[in-house]
Formats: sequence, C-alpha cells, structure tokens
Amino acid sequence: MSVELAIGVDIGGTKIHFALADDQGKLYHQEIVRTEAREGAVVVLNQVLEGIGRMYEAASAYTDREKLRGIGIGSAGQIDFATGRVAFAVDTLPGWTGTRIKEDVAGRFPGLPVIVDNDVNVQAIAERRYGAARGLNSFVCLALGTGIGGAVVENGQLIRGTFGGAAELGHVSVNFNGPRCSCGNRGCIELYASGTGIVRLADEHAAAGLYEGQTDSRSVIKGWLDGEPQASAIMDVVITALSTGISGLIHTFNPQAVIIGGGVSEAGEPLLSALRREAALRTAPAMWEAVKIVPAAVGIQAGVIGAAAQLWHYS
Amino acid sequence: MSVELAIGVDIGGTKIHFALADDQGKLYHQEIVRTEAREGAVVVLNQVLEGIGRMYEAASAYTDREKLRGIGIGSAGQIDFATGRVAFAVDTLPGWTGTRIKEDVAGRFPGLPVIVDNDVNVQAIAERRYGAARGLNSFVCLALGTGIGGAVVENGQLIRGTFGGAAELGHVSVNFNGPRCSCGNRGCIELYASGTGIVRLADEHAAAGLYEGQTDSRSVIKGWLDGEPQASAIMDVVITALSTGISGLIHTFNPQAVIIGGGVSEAGEPLLSALRREAALRTAPAMWEAVKIVPAAVGIQAGVIGAAAQLWHYS
Repeated sequence: MSVELAIGVDIGGTKIHFALADDQGKLYHQEIVRTEAREGAVVVLNQVLEGIGRMYEAASAYTDREKLRGIGIGSAGQIDFATGRVAFAVDTLPGWTGTRIKEDVAGRFPGLPVIVDNDVNVQAIAERRYGAARGLNSFVCLALGTGIGGAVVENGQLIRGTFGGAAELGHVSVNFNGPRCSCGNRGCIELYASGTGIVRLADEHAAAGLYEGQTDSRSVIKGWLDGEPQASAIMDVVITALSTGISGLIHTFNPQAVIIGGGVSEAGEPLLSALRREAALRTAPAMWEAVKIVPAAVGIQAGVIGAAAQLWHYS
Repeated sequence: MSVELAIGVDIGGTKIHFALADDQGKLYHQEIVRTEAREGAVVVLNQVLEGIGRMYEAASAYTDREKLRGIGIGSAGQIDFATGRVAFAVDTLPGWTGTRIKEDVAGRFPGLPVIVDNDVNVQAIAERRYGAARGLNSFVCLALGTGIGGAVVENGQLIRGTFGGAAELGHVSVNFNGPRCSCGNRGCIELYASGTGIVRLADEHAAAGLYEGQTDSRSVIKGWLDGEPQASAIMDVVITALSTGISGLIHTFNPQAVIIGGGVSEAGEPLLSALRREAALRTAPAMWEAVKIVPAAVGIQAGVIGAAAQLWHYS
C-alpha cells in the first residue's frame, strides 16, 4: 500500500494534536501531547517540530517518502497566512505572538511544503471537504468553546483581512452597554455563548438568588434540557444573544450556512432548534430563506484533519 | 477629442442620477430625475432606459461611438451581480424585487456591456479608484444616510454572499434587547446611527422630557457640535452604538480602513474623532493598529461615478 498522506498539526493552548491523514480525511496515525504553554514559545515550537519528526518517521509504515505531500498546521491565534507567522495570540499561548511557524518548520523539513493557518480556518476547510459545508461557497463557522472562534468562507475563499485577524467572531458585540470584554469592547457574543460566558451568566444569576444549580456550563445546559426553570432563564439569555449575533452575521455575509461547532454545541439539536427559532424572527426573510443553521459534522478531530487537508485544498 | 467614456446610472428611491464618466471619474454630462417609485418597477425601469438613451445620444458630443465602453448601474437593493437582477429591495422602490435590470438594459442597447451592482458596492469601487480607499485591498464602507448601507472589500474583492445580499451592515445588531427593526432583529446599528435612527432617539429623549430641541437629525447634530448638553446626550448614544458596531466590523474583517460616508457623516471631523476615541477602547490592539477610520472622499456623486467605474474596475 502506498497512499498519499499529509502531516497535520493542531496547536492549541492545552494540547497539540499530530496526525497522518489522506485526502479523504482518514487518519492513519496520531498522537496528542500536552502543550507546555507556560514554558514559552520556544519550547512549544520544539514540541511541534519533534512531533512532526515522529509523524515523518511513522509515515514510512503507510507510504513511500515521495508520497508525503507536506505539512499542514492549524494554530490558535491570528495567523498571517502568507508568511505563516503568528500575528497575534492571547495568553493561552504566552509569547506565541511573532512565532515564525512556517519558516521554522520548513527549515527543519526541507522539500516538504508547509501551510499554516488559524485553527478555526482549518476546521472550516475540514467542514467544506468532509463535513457540513460540502459543496458550499459561502458559509460561516462558529466554534463555541471556552471562547468563541470564527471562520468565514466567501465566494469559496477564507476571509483573512489585512494580517490574518479576520473572523474573530466571538468579539462582535451584541450589547453596547454589556460587560467589558478582554478585547476592549462591551457585550461581545463570547461573553454570552461560550463556555465561560455561560458560567459568567450562571454566576450572575446565582449572585442575584435566581439560580441554585452548579454554575459550570454542562450543568446549566443539562438543567435547561431537563426543563429546569432557573437554568432555562440563563439559556434564554444565551440563545437570545447568540441568535442576535447569528442574524447579524447572516446580514453581513448572506451565507448558505452557519455551522455551529465546539463544546457548547454538544447541547445538540435542542440548542440548534432554539437558535433557528429565534434567528428566524431576527433575520430579513430573503436572507433567512437562503441559509441553514447546522451542526459541525467532522467532530473533535476537525482541527488536525483540516490542518492536513490544506495540502489538498490549496492545490 | 475622443476620450473613452462609460454611462453611469445611480438608482435610488428618490432620484435617478445619470452621467457620462471617464476612467478618472471625471463627469462630462449628467442629469438627475425624480424616481417615479410609486408608479412601480416598470415605470422606473423605463425612466432608467430613457435616461440611458439620452446619455447615449449625448456621448457623441464627447467621444466616438466605438469608444463608449459600456453601461454601469448601481441600484438600491440587493443585487445578484452575475445576473444583474434585483434579489431584494425594500419599499422605497415598490415592486423592484425581481427586476431584471441587466437583461432589460442589455436588450435595449445591444453591443454595450452592462454591469449592475448594489449602490453602496459601486460607491466602494469609487472610493477605491478615486477616493479614501486608493491602494487598499481590505476595507469596510458605511453609508450613514436615511438608513445605513454597507460594502466590504476583502482581498481586493467585494463580498456578495450567496445572492448578493452581503454587507447589509445597517442590520447588524448592537443591542439584543433593543427596539425591533424592520428587518426583524432588535437593536440594529441603523436604529441608532442613521438619520432616522437619530430622529428616533431624539423623539425618545423628547418624550422623556430630556430633550427640547428640534428632533430632526441636523438639529441634533448641530446642538451636539455647539456643546448643547441635551443634544450631546443623544449623540453619546449614537456614538457608543456606532463605534461598538465598527469595532465588531474590525474584528470581523481586520480591514485597513473603515470609510464613513452618507448624510450623517457631514457632521465631519468631530464625529470621526469621537468614533475613533470610542472604537479605540473597544477594539483589540493589534487590529486597531492596522486600521484607520476615515471619511468618504468622492462625495455625493460617488454613486454615479462608481456605477460608471465598474466598466474599468472589472476589466
């Protein structure tokens, strides 16, 4: 057997995921290591280089060396796609800003193409090739995790902006008088519909004597799914804020789909139904008829699969 | 003399502007007619065809017929760029939805290329060729008029979405609990920072006994510029809401510029300064450093100039 493979790397603040993938998104070999984020960028970059080295060795069991197509990397932070440099990263990866990922990886593995992008952008590529966005040229991805990440494909292309900072959709405000966000704005979607946003709302309700349950997001979501009124009041705010943001994104991008992924989206069909119901009321009819709100389909390996998929996507 | 000219047409709910323009945006001949909007789409389309006919005749005074490059049209409403059909228009042009502008104009003037787009999109082309966006590949235009129109250029291309509805930036919400908008959403930017939005706020303040001046937007803006406290309280809301929206757009598009035009922007540098001050606080530093907030530079003829400029922009 000698299938064509790419090395995929998904770099996050808590773990780095390495894999060998083919152009169908099938994984042949993988490894997850804990990110030594606190040790700084040099240590993390070394973890990345060493992991790629192990994938490179492992590849020989599955394919001829000349059929190794290249190295695709998705990283947390804003990535300048042309240079593969980290334009900006928050403190989940201290010192990561400025890291020349592409240059350093290419220097260590000469002869192999290296493509580096933001982690949510590569997930969008995975959804387009293998998941919920198959055949779509215009769609928005929202990753509802600890924070909220975004990616937008317009006319078949990922939007990037001037240095790769585009599609920071968690930091679109839906409440100009809302609480201050780490980005400087007030009332960002992330403050309502991320994991930490749900905890924040639950704490607020608890402090006001309006909620007596556990304030972690899983407990709040479970309470809501069970029909518990106090948890439901919290989730009403989450759904209202998030659907308002989704309607704004529909008016901004006139997309064919809004694809919802990330940990919070594990609430599943009840959450999607509620979002559809509320967003339908808040979206201009012509735009609403053209769009569907659907769950991400590739799953928790979308990061590493999409990272590798770049090698086929851009050729 | 025989310069190359294009016919430009700017179709709005109150007037239709026709002109002959060269590739420097210079106008040679122009005419403005009142839109017979209430008479319906067939009458309006006839006004358009007749006006183009008059421009076609007038062109012979300036150029040889074979140097007439084509017909460029900007129209209110959401335009499907490929077909030049009105995908959706609001009631300022009753019945305009579905009008096949490109097909009907091309049928009447065979041999001349016809390009049709949304009115704010063509203004963005005018700003890029002749105005505030010269040399920029990534920028956002906000037209603060009776309503708020938007256009976005990303990686050198206008964003359009699936049927040409993209960049309806007036209908991005900045307040999920705000007043209901005609689009269905609540708290849209248009409800705060358009001409009618300022009137709405002024009426609200007047009803609460907080404002005693004239409630038209010019009077409110003049009161604010004169340092009048009641008008300033209204404009504080306008500026807070609008800068929140602008920060969201910066986080969405990571643009090089946000270009502010339209009647409300005639408030000039004081308004821009206030927006810059507030948006600076609400935008992630790396994104803020990469962007400037600047006034539209082409002026009130940007619509017809941009409409004609399409003939050079797309070749």
